Amino acid sequence: MSKIACGIDLGGTKLEVGLVDDNGNIIARVKRPTHAHEGPESVIDKINDSIMTALEKSNIKQRDLRGIGIGVPGLIDADMGKVIFLTNLPGWRDIPLAEIMEEKFHIPVKLGNDADAAAYGEYLFGSGRGARNFVYMTVSTGIGGGVIIEGKLYRGASSGAAEIGHVVIDVHGENCGNYGCFEALASGTAIARFAKRAIDRGRHSLIEELSGDEPIKAEHVFEAAGQGDRLALDIIDEEAFYLGIGICNIMAMYNPERIAIGGGVSNQWDMFYHKMMETVRDRALKQNAKVCRVIKAELGTDAGVVGAAALII
Amino acid sequence: MSKIACGIDLGGTKLEVGLVDDNGNIIARVKRPTHAHEGPESVIDKINDSIMTALEKSNIKQRDLRGIGIGVPGLIDADMGKVIFLTNLPGWRDIPLAEIMEEKFHIPVKLGNDADAAAYGEYLFGSGRGARNFVYMTVSTGIGGGVIIEGKLYRGASSGAAEIGHVVIDVHGENCGNYGCFEALASGTAIARFAKRAIDRGRHSLIEELSGDEPIKAEHVFEAAGQGDRLALDIIDEEAFYLGIGICNIMAMYNPERIAIGGGVSNQWDMFYHKMMETVRDRALKQNAKVCRVIKAELGTDAGVVGAAALII
Repeated sequence: MSKIACGIDLGGTKLEVGLVDDNGNIIARVKRPTHAHEGPESVIDKINDSIMTALEKSNIKQRDLRGIGIGVPGLIDADMGKVIFLTNLPGWRDIPLAEIMEEKFHIPVKLGNDADAAAYGEYLFGSGRGARNFVYMTVSTGIGGGVIIEGKLYRGASSGAAEIGHVVIDVHGENCGNYGCFEALASGTAIARFAKRAIDRGRHSLIEELSGDEPIKAEHVFEAAGQGDRLALDIIDEEAFYLGIGICNIMAMYNPERIAIGGGVSNQWDMFYHKMMETVRDRALKQNAKVCRVIKAELGTDAGVVGAAALII
Repeated sequence: MSKIACGIDLGGTKLEVGLVDDNGNIIARVKRPTHAHEGPESVIDKINDSIMTALEKSNIKQRDLRGIGIGVPGLIDADMGKVIFLTNLPGWRDIPLAEIMEEKFHIPVKLGNDADAAAYGEYLFGSGRGARNFVYMTVSTGIGGGVIIEGKLYRGASSGAAEIGHVVIDVHGENCGNYGCFEALASGTAIARFAKRAIDRGRHSLIEELSGDEPIKAEHVFEAAGQGDRLALDIIDEEAFYLGIGICNIMAMYNPERIAIGGGVSNQWDMFYHKMMETVRDRALKQNAKVCRVIKAELGTDAGVVGAAALII
């Protein structure tokens, strides 16, 4: 049996195809804009083209692929291989994606929620290696997650397990559309919102200069903090506190051996790690915190492709 | 192999021993005060005596027992069969309970957290039957839980999984010693505390009359609510709202097919069910709520003994 699996990371703005070996190495990759507005049929054509291009680039024959795994940003039915609904890709509703692609390539095709796929990739090849109970959390625009229970990816009854971003942590919170969900307080989007609100209320900050005419982004806040800006440092402290609370909740629910954090915000690890862990030390259940390491995810932007391939491996 | 297992529900005030058949029926039971202040050695003697009494009552021979399961209210190391620490039983620290009892009875002895054991009992014989992914939540003085993942009791890395009561839902809450934990807002204890606070602040209520010289208890609040008392009804509405939020969080984390609620508060099911489910409908992730039934636990006070026996079955 071939040792090569194809992993696809389908995003709202770009799609990436990678050929991945049994050790999680990417042998060939093709990255393209998704042009999601063109609709599912066109996007599927682009996926297929990209697979063919990757095969050509690497001199691997189509018949040597053991299967195709696709990480999808939204609702799926993993058992049926069906996309149910994707927020950022118009027209994707009830599409039997696995079936369509199996008909073309004649090999097994599996779908996974993108965060689940990344979690599984990290478990097999990255930050989760050797941890039988492992939670992966991705913090960027939103907060997603995936969980490995006793060595197996756990999806739940409707592929919706580990929707960590939607755990309510601030039940009386009024300042977020999302009812005090974890991601409304601890995501990159939240960082930007907190900054904008403070500035709108008259706080002065380097963040304003750095963002210029653009809308404020989390990146601006981190950059300002790096230069010692008071407001930016306060906001990142708050973010770190909320991340710590989220980790306490993950520990209380799953009691894992390891938690890894990926996504754009994790690139600023040193900025929030200390305060985040201080919160965990103060507030987490001792017996659960004692057995759990919290580390940075290892696969970075490759997690999507490697994780999708891992659905087949 | 014998079909009879012995289940022990060890509590701070009473201990119960039951002989349980393969269908979860209790064939004989013995209930005694724990007299926890007498210390572990005396409590273990009482457990052993009660087992012998149960065997005599039922005419079952010791050698016909297939094993003993013990549900313990506190920290354990399930793999080692060791009690680490029990809040309400003085002196219980690092006690190799399974080993001690195996030496006496020469049959396998297994320990479980009491909520885990009850969850497993409900899964095998009660409200969780047929649900591969199932969460049991017990709401009384505190809030505990247990979770079945793909048909197996999931304990986590240090027997601390499903510590649902310790999930932070009110991160900015100041009115609870416990940092806005779910159980600080939704337990029976919380109901009593909310009532006391309102009355201390001058609200008039039937609750006062019903409690008389005793401290206010959740029971008084439910009784007053049953008679239409405004304050009591408000408090139970609030409780029901928080329970709903807790259920949303369970759905977001575990995406189970079923959630069952047991414990003293669940006996007042009709008082809180409607408002609780209204909260779930408003706030839970739609795709997770759609596949999940929320029901009352079925085994009632037997869950402890049957669940402990289930650790062996």
